[in-house]
Amino acid sequence: MERHIDQELKALNQDILRMGALAEEAIYRSVEALKNRDPQEARNVIDNDSQIDRLELDVDEHCVDLIARFQPMAKDLRFIATGMKINAELERIADIAVDIAQRTLELVEKPLLKPLVDIPRLAAVAQNMVKLSIDAFVQGDIALAKQVLSSDAQADQLRNAIQKELVDNYMVKDGATAPRAVQLLLIARFLERICDHTTNIAEDVIYMVQAEVVRHHPERLEGQN
Amino acid sequence: MERHIDQELKALNQDILRMGALAEEAIYRSVEALKNRDPQEARNVIDNDSQIDRLELDVDEHCVDLIARFQPMAKDLRFIATGMKINAELERIADIAVDIAQRTLELVEKPLLKPLVDIPRLAAVAQNMVKLSIDAFVQGDIALAKQVLSSDAQADQLRNAIQKELVDNYMVKDGATAPRAVQLLLIARFLERICDHTTNIAEDVIYMVQAEVVRHHPERLEGQN
Repeated sequence: MERHIDQELKALNQDILRMGALAEEAIYRSVEALKNRDPQEARNVIDNDSQIDRLELDVDEHCVDLIARFQPMAKDLRFIATGMKINAELERIADIAVDIAQRTLELVEKPLLKPLVDIPRLAAVAQNMVKLSIDAFVQGDIALAKQVLSSDAQADQLRNAIQKELVDNYMVKDGATAPRAVQLLLIARFLERICDHTTNIAEDVIYMVQAEVVRHHPERLEGQN
Repeated sequence: MERHIDQELKALNQDILRMGALAEEAIYRSVEALKNRDPQEARNVIDNDSQIDRLELDVDEHCVDLIARFQPMAKDLRFIATGMKINAELERIADIAVDIAQRTLELVEKPLLKPLVDIPRLAAVAQNMVKLSIDAFVQGDIALAKQVLSSDAQADQLRNAIQKELVDNYMVKDGATAPRAVQLLLIARFLERICDHTTNIAEDVIYMVQAEVVRHHPERLEGQN
């Protein structure tokens, strides 16, 4: 028999999926704006962020409200607490898309420094990690969460390659490229930070699923107090 | 009469104060290592991070446990939920001190680029914002939280001044300085990100104190469901 709280938890899942979709879209659009040198699209990303901020507050409030009304048992409580953390991570991810859009607005005012290859590749990795980490949460799937953690090495590698190319092949050789190269370098680091947020989500999911195992054995908890 | 949960909430306050002190210390030591070109101190910051990571998990577990055992009412629940978020922010702040220590290890291998003036100044702002934001939480003090938010402009300004100086006066004039100048630029951005985390904490505190006002009027909540 389905409990009333199960419906509420499903609704929370939907909220997190929606936050995840909005965050993914913000990343995608910010990097499209960069690739296409499209200031209007960059401004759209910046403008849309307030919608994501509001949704974050709603989801957060909803979580506290759920706990207050249902006084859920350990497993459900851990799920809601993890949902609150992931909600905050997704809001931060969307904020980073705004950072990318702001760098883009500065870059489109100047001539193109170089064709972008690795930055869109890193953006695709970041977007995929957002998607995987949210799926890991919604399905409570440790294997998916571990996939996120193992993708992070690829993100680090791409970020380092981008940084090295910009420093060695542009800034060092021709100091005049530095103002633009620094913006691209920051964008690469923003994307890699998005990946770091998804590893936070993945770690929270693993902890949620594993803590659940502990919490099925309350005697272990008693020993801790 | 003091309720049993009040003792537990005081203990949570102590935990957050301890996390805050550790995070502040990590910032201070990472910037001392940079200023004194001291690789051993940088390595200490990196090594100490696992202690902060463990404390974060303990505090988090303790919060969930508190909710499960006491089924606290709205005000206490919001306090605990905010404590969980702040705990996560403080762990991230300590991670950024590790980032600074890692950049420092690379910088000490090369000749000094320039005497550091604004970076230690920005570090002092960041440390003070950490302290203020934690005090705001522990005392539930909106005025302190607002002080954190208004300090952020100063941090942004310092970060921008540092970035502009490094790009205009070093990288553009002499490309050979770029590898070191980029490391310093990243350190300035790390410090400014620490400030951003403290504004997250301040916003959480304001939301906690204000939501409390709403929650003293349960009829308003009923209307939301």
